[in-house]
Amino acid sequence: MYRHTKSLQFQVKPERPDALFAAKLQELVGGQFGEMTVMMQYLWQGWNCRIPGKYKDMILDIGTEEIGHVEMLVTMMARLLEGAPSETQAQAAAANPALAAVLGGQNVQHAIVTGGAAMPTNSQGVPWNGGYIVASGNLLADFRSNVAAEAQSRLQTARVYNMTDDPGVKETLQFNLARDTYHQQQWLLGIEQLIEDGFTDGLEDSHKDEEKTEHARTFYSFTEGSRAGEGRWAQGNTLIGNEELVFAEGVPLTDDVNQVPPPDPLLFSTYD
Amino acid sequence: MYRHTKSLQFQVKPERPDALFAAKLQELVGGQFGEMTVMMQYLWQGWNCRIPGKYKDMILDIGTEEIGHVEMLVTMMARLLEGAPSETQAQAAAANPALAAVLGGQNVQHAIVTGGAAMPTNSQGVPWNGGYIVASGNLLADFRSNVAAEAQSRLQTARVYNMTDDPGVKETLQFNLARDTYHQQQWLLGIEQLIEDGFTDGLEDSHKDEEKTEHARTFYSFTEGSRAGEGRWAQGNTLIGNEELVFAEGVPLTDDVNQVPPPDPLLFSTYD
Amino acid sequence: MYRHTKSLQFQVKPERPDALFAAKLQELVGGQFGEMTVMMQYLWQGWNCRIPGKYKDMILDIGTEEIGHVEMLVTMMARLLEGAPSETQAQAAAANPALAAVLGGQNVQHAIVTGGAAMPTNSQGVPWNGGYIVASGNLLADFRSNVAAEAQSRLQTARVYNMTDDPGVKETLQFNLARDTYHQQQWLLGIEQLIEDGFTDGLEDSHKDEEKTEHARTFYSFTEGSRAGEGRWAQGNTLIGNEELVFAEGVPLTDDVNQVPPPDPLLFSTYD
Amino acid sequence: MYRHTKSLQFQVKPERPDALFAAKLQELVGGQFGEMTVMMQYLWQGWNCRIPGKYKDMILDIGTEEIGHVEMLVTMMARLLEGAPSETQAQAAAANPALAAVLGGQNVQHAIVTGGAAMPTNSQGVPWNGGYIVASGNLLADFRSNVAAEAQSRLQTARVYNMTDDPGVKETLQFNLARDTYHQQQWLLGIEQLIEDGFTDGLEDSHKDEEKTEHARTFYSFTEGSRAGEGRWAQGNTLIGNEELVFAEGVPLTDDVNQVPPPDPLLFSTYD
Amino acid sequence: MYRHTKSLQFQVKPERPDALFAAKLQELVGGQFGEMTVMMQYLWQGWNCRIPGKYKDMILDIGTEEIGHVEMLVTMMARLLEGAPSETQAQAAAANPALAAVLGGQNVQHAIVTGGAAMPTNSQGVPWNGGYIVASGNLLADFRSNVAAEAQSRLQTARVYNMTDDPGVKETLQFNLARDTYHQQQWLLGIEQLIEDGFTDGLEDSHKDEEKTEHARTFYSFTEGSRAGEGRWAQGNTLIGNEELVFAEGVPLTDDVNQVPPPDPLLFSTYD
Amino acid sequence: MYRHTKSLQFQVKPERPDALFAAKLQELVGGQFGEMTVMMQYLWQGWNCRIPGKYKDMILDIGTEEIGHVEMLVTMMARLLEGAPSETQAQAAAANPALAAVLGGQNVQHAIVTGGAAMPTNSQGVPWNGGYIVASGNLLADFRSNVAAEAQSRLQTARVYNMTDDPGVKETLQFNLARDTYHQQQWLLGIEQLIEDGFTDGLEDSHKDEEKTEHARTFYSFTEGSRAGEGRWAQGNTLIGNEELVFAEGVPLTDDVNQVPPPDPLLFSTYD
Ligand SMILES: [Ca+2]
Ligand SMILES: [Ca+2]
Ligand SMILES: [Ca+2]
Ligand SMILES: [Ca+2]
Ligand SMILES: [Ca+2]
Ligand SMILES: [Ca+2]
Repeated sequence: MYRHTKSLQFQVKPERPDALFAAKLQELVGGQFGEMTVMMQYLWQGWNCRIPGKYKDMILDIGTEEIGHVEMLVTMMARLLEGAPSETQAQAAAANPALAAVLGGQNVQHAIVTGGAAMPTNSQGVPWNGGYIVASGNLLADFRSNVAAEAQSRLQTARVYNMTDDPGVKETLQFNLARDTYHQQQWLLGIEQLIEDGFTDGLEDSHKDEEKTEHARTFYSFTEGSRAGEGRWAQGNTLIGNEELVFAEGVPLTDDVNQVPPPDPLLFSTYD
Repeated sequence: MYRHTKSLQFQVKPERPDALFAAKLQELVGGQFGEMTVMMQYLWQGWNCRIPGKYKDMILDIGTEEIGHVEMLVTMMARLLEGAPSETQAQAAAANPALAAVLGGQNVQHAIVTGGAAMPTNSQGVPWNGGYIVASGNLLADFRSNVAAEAQSRLQTARVYNMTDDPGVKETLQFNLARDTYHQQQWLLGIEQLIEDGFTDGLEDSHKDEEKTEHARTFYSFTEGSRAGEGRWAQGNTLIGNEELVFAEGVPLTDDVNQVPPPDPLLFSTYD
Repeated sequence: MYRHTKSLQFQVKPERPDALFAAKLQELVGGQFGEMTVMMQYLWQGWNCRIPGKYKDMILDIGTEEIGHVEMLVTMMARLLEGAPSETQAQAAAANPALAAVLGGQNVQHAIVTGGAAMPTNSQGVPWNGGYIVASGNLLADFRSNVAAEAQSRLQTARVYNMTDDPGVKETLQFNLARDTYHQQQWLLGIEQLIEDGFTDGLEDSHKDEEKTEHARTFYSFTEGSRAGEGRWAQGNTLIGNEELVFAEGVPLTDDVNQVPPPDPLLFSTYD
Repeated sequence: MYRHTKSLQFQVKPERPDALFAAKLQELVGGQFGEMTVMMQYLWQGWNCRIPGKYKDMILDIGTEEIGHVEMLVTMMARLLEGAPSETQAQAAAANPALAAVLGGQNVQHAIVTGGAAMPTNSQGVPWNGGYIVASGNLLADFRSNVAAEAQSRLQTARVYNMTDDPGVKETLQFNLARDTYHQQQWLLGIEQLIEDGFTDGLEDSHKDEEKTEHARTFYSFTEGSRAGEGRWAQGNTLIGNEELVFAEGVPLTDDVNQVPPPDPLLFSTYD
Repeated sequence: MYRHTKSLQFQVKPERPDALFAAKLQELVGGQFGEMTVMMQYLWQGWNCRIPGKYKDMILDIGTEEIGHVEMLVTMMARLLEGAPSETQAQAAAANPALAAVLGGQNVQHAIVTGGAAMPTNSQGVPWNGGYIVASGNLLADFRSNVAAEAQSRLQTARVYNMTDDPGVKETLQFNLARDTYHQQQWLLGIEQLIEDGFTDGLEDSHKDEEKTEHARTFYSFTEGSRAGEGRWAQGNTLIGNEELVFAEGVPLTDDVNQVPPPDPLLFSTYD
Repeated sequence: MYRHTKSLQFQVKPERPDALFAAKLQELVGGQFGEMTVMMQYLWQGWNCRIPGKYKDMILDIGTEEIGHVEMLVTMMARLLEGAPSETQAQAAAANPALAAVLGGQNVQHAIVTGGAAMPTNSQGVPWNGGYIVASGNLLADFRSNVAAEAQSRLQTARVYNMTDDPGVKETLQFNLARDTYHQQQWLLGIEQLIEDGFTDGLEDSHKDEEKTEHARTFYSFTEGSRAGEGRWAQGNTLIGNEELVFAEGVPLTDDVNQVPPPDPLLFSTYD
């Protein structure tokens, strides 16, 4: 069960409205790696975590924090959209290139649909969807996804940071950058903890004994003149099991070709 | 530019058709972490890699391999769907529970839409979409996403592996399991290489000097009785920079509340 | 079966083209509450209405009117897009901020995809989809959805109305505003009629006798300092049944916690 | 900011697992009117509510309650999925029609993707998306949408209620039915409060003075033999303004026809 | 403007309900090539047709017919769904494999969401969307799309035809098969008419004089051992212009390689 | 299996970056008829082609070529995006309308998400999805779809060609125009070959003997005053079978009306 506190986790005080920037900020709200994604991803993983105790509590703690991050950005959006163009301004634009940029680049759903507020979409207006999130029940695989999500999210935040010079907005984004730095570490340390607790050796290797091991340590190259063999991934030891990595040309390992069976006549596929 | 070789990379020879299993296998073709995803993700990252040489070539090599993985699974699907139910069989089902399961669980698009072949969708019929892939131009962030994709993909393969006892199918999946083991390492070693080459210290930390550092090492807990403080993520040193991790109760760090400005009257939002 | 009449229901005569406004008007064509939505929603409800007579005929009458509303807006769009920028105009824009706004804000699919016509999408280019519509077979629930759709649609029309000063466009939107006013009443009066005809008491209460009645009259608050208790929803009588409404703090009504069972080992979820 | 309490709002204790029922229950989690929709809809409306005090607090209180409803159903799903089929069982199914039904009707993503847990999708596997929610800033329009959402949601709950005879599941659904009864009233009483507070007369009528009033009180019929004129919506007084409702045949109110202008030659549309 | 006639264009009278078949029939209602697609595609093309007269009228006539086809199939669906399983029947299924097939294979949204009626989705529950339709303003290109749509639609209808032995359903589908035969011809003859009227020579060749003609008559092969050179497409004359078709190995026609420029440092892409 | 060659099939050398044009070019990358669509469509059709030899090889040859077309456009996009605006430039825009157009019209995901590279989306940011492609197993139906795809794709290329005056970009598009001209012919000649090889008479007519032939040669008109009877589709002989085409008014061919059966009471649909 959840409870709400009226104060925000961190302040979101733009010095002035900026509808053009608000259109960009949507990516951090409802994009593939926006706050909605990490909020739903962590809540889902936490609710379904099978081990009670530190792991489950950790995941749910951060999931709960992320609800507050969505709240923060949605609040900032409403403030950025104050006074955004809501009526025809062709004449005004004719004398004002900066206004022309805003008229061209604003997100018109901010006026038409929400009446001056954020949308649950990305910067292109694509609705957030559940296909963005990951929750497999396997904590190693999920923590790997979570590190990645925080890295992508932080990178996008750093890019968006350049797109404003409003000190109030920058202040908030500085907080978000720091949280994403910490959260990357949180998940990486979570993997260390999983290893220490004996749950994994750091690679997802379910049914380890069933896999064709000779293909588990070979880099196959499919390009003439590829220089991929110069990298660490094609030489030295495997991360687990202390075997020698191999660099090899990618060739068919079978004489099986893509020949498919005659069709059922009732399907009217083309066939002799 | 690409060229095609008629032989498959590895054999895909089911001993017998199995329409019910084919419906499940769709997840590994066109699901969030199916072969279509890694194929498009690596091609996209490779085409846009800014550094010529070992990184770019490595990414494009694996991207090219993955085209062949899609080809393999699509071929296997057509073989699994040979002779799948394509006409009304109510009477037959009345005497045959195994057939009833197939009639209930088959993917009817396999008959109606493709005429006995795979769909570019997941196991629920949701079309594959570009919102699944990640290509940011930042190799650390992308390699993190790639490790995660291979881990999730391998886990799903291991789960699907249990759902068949066809030795031919299992043989192919054993190859796929091994490639996913290798590919996880490939990306983890890629991160090691990036660190060795001086591109990163392993955390995404663009605009490092701008972030609010006090929030980059603190775990905030939002649950009474949370045991999250027992984990490595809440004690000991940070991964980078040798600072002490902190466990703290999550409290508002501001008195800013979610109060939003008066609306533009032209937007007809409710306001006094 | 349907028949077409060449004349439009109401005129759609912009005085001049306006590609920037056309980009906004897409929201009223193919958005969540655009004309495509109400057209498909009412047709679907009408076709599936179980009671012959006044209800079914009323729903199908309005559904048929709405086909004509889509036709009207699509026609207006083609007229608004006449002469929209279709070639490179960087130099022209350099001397003309108003053109710059158009170049920035036009919907380029209007040129590339449709050749100067509307798209079946919203103002952000998101394709209209069947997930927008509602048709449950329960007329009370559906009429509630229909009132809501007309209210949202009218509000968006009023907002878009501000974004043009073209008298021809305004004339059409004045007609649409009026229809949405009437249609809101139509559905509200439909609910009155349902009550009068004995189909409902105005609340959806299927399986009324099964519900836990003590939770059917209580407002639970989950925020410290919430002032929600001051509203009518937390005091006075229920709408049906003449019971006293209650305002209460939201607390767990159970000691059940989110603990989930041990996983099937074949699923490789993380567990001791 | 949000906080988490480990106890659930209400218990979710199925007596036994039931994978077939779990597949259906997805509709109430991630469907158009599932708990994810009302949770996100109310949070969004609340965060963007312009008037501090009872309205904003009320909306955020219920939004916070709904987070807990998602948590409840996700927890119940994991319990329902305990021991669901995760390996090949063709032989078992051959002797067991009930198992055949499960094998046919289970949601295979429950095994392959989540490892025995709910998906953020509807009962057909379609991911939840932001296009389901409504938050316009106009409280009348939004409360209308909220009544509708609760009515549709309650109706779906009542239908799903018939699909199980597990007393533990029924117990939870009885609680949900009651909350949906209360929440319908909450929004209807919210509209009464808006009227009492002078914000609206109950119809969305922004730019009231601009609309073409003669079309705001007329039912147009487009079907020969329509009996729609027998309903309250076509006779008696308007809800607002005390005018006479009119029933009229739908005829073109203009001689404007769907004729569209000559295309720009650069668009290569077909034209003389 | 549109008008509705109560009689259907053709009868839709199943002899008996069949929920399992109804689940399949959804593909013909709301699939990529279902009746919703051709209805919206033709209406959209017709409304935007620039030439008044026979072309525009023809397109709108068929568009109007297709509204009636959606109406027919939606009506048939409601009849097929009469008495579909709507409550728990685990025990009944245990003794009845045919029922097990239905319980496994039915579309549960037919009960939960629509209350015994069609959904605006395909056979997998994916909502119909505007991305399926084509309307470019260029009649040749669009008529090509329309032939293709009718061919795919007819093929799917023929496949679905095998999946029922209900004479009433077959009767309706026999009508639909015939209409799709006619409609294929209608669009092919439309192309002949366009050629006769001087609008095109049958190939889309806008900016004909700009294209690099040497690449407009060459088949490039990218597979060793390809037998593609044996086909008509690689020998003989071009369709237009009487040139010789060429079969050639696909080789790079440039020494340009996929090298991309150094990134903007503010984007934090990986680069030396 | 696939192999990669570092050289591109054709050069992609813009003379200068142009972020505004890059936003439009997305339509040709990831739109409904962009290179991703034809690439996936042909690979899918080829992998599933049932007849070994010239048809299968031809389809896979072109599918392989199209992978290279995606590579070409993605490469060109990265070059067009060099130096695109990535930081706040409000002041610069105030003095520069051309920059204002760019700031308004650029695709901000090109900076925030990909760091200066293409997205796997269309020009509106909608992700490419598998619902765009067609692969039915019936070569006639699929070749019809392929002609259409090349015609639409070529038309869009010709329209985009007008939107740039960069000679390097035009050079590449001139190559693409030519390939689309050839590919249209390739599929049309493929149909001729199918006819010559006895697979079809050019119409999709599976279950030919089952269809209601009287409706296979009649144009039905649903508009008063329709001039559709003047076209070739309504007079002269059918394309196959030498019958007379008929023009007729569209009237109900049945007295069946859209009356749907009483609902199951457990579904709570409205009924007496
Ligand atoms: Ca965050
Ligand atoms: Ca793979
Ligand atoms: Ca309307
Ligand atoms: Ca609820
Ligand atoms: Ca049809
Ligand atoms: Ca191409």
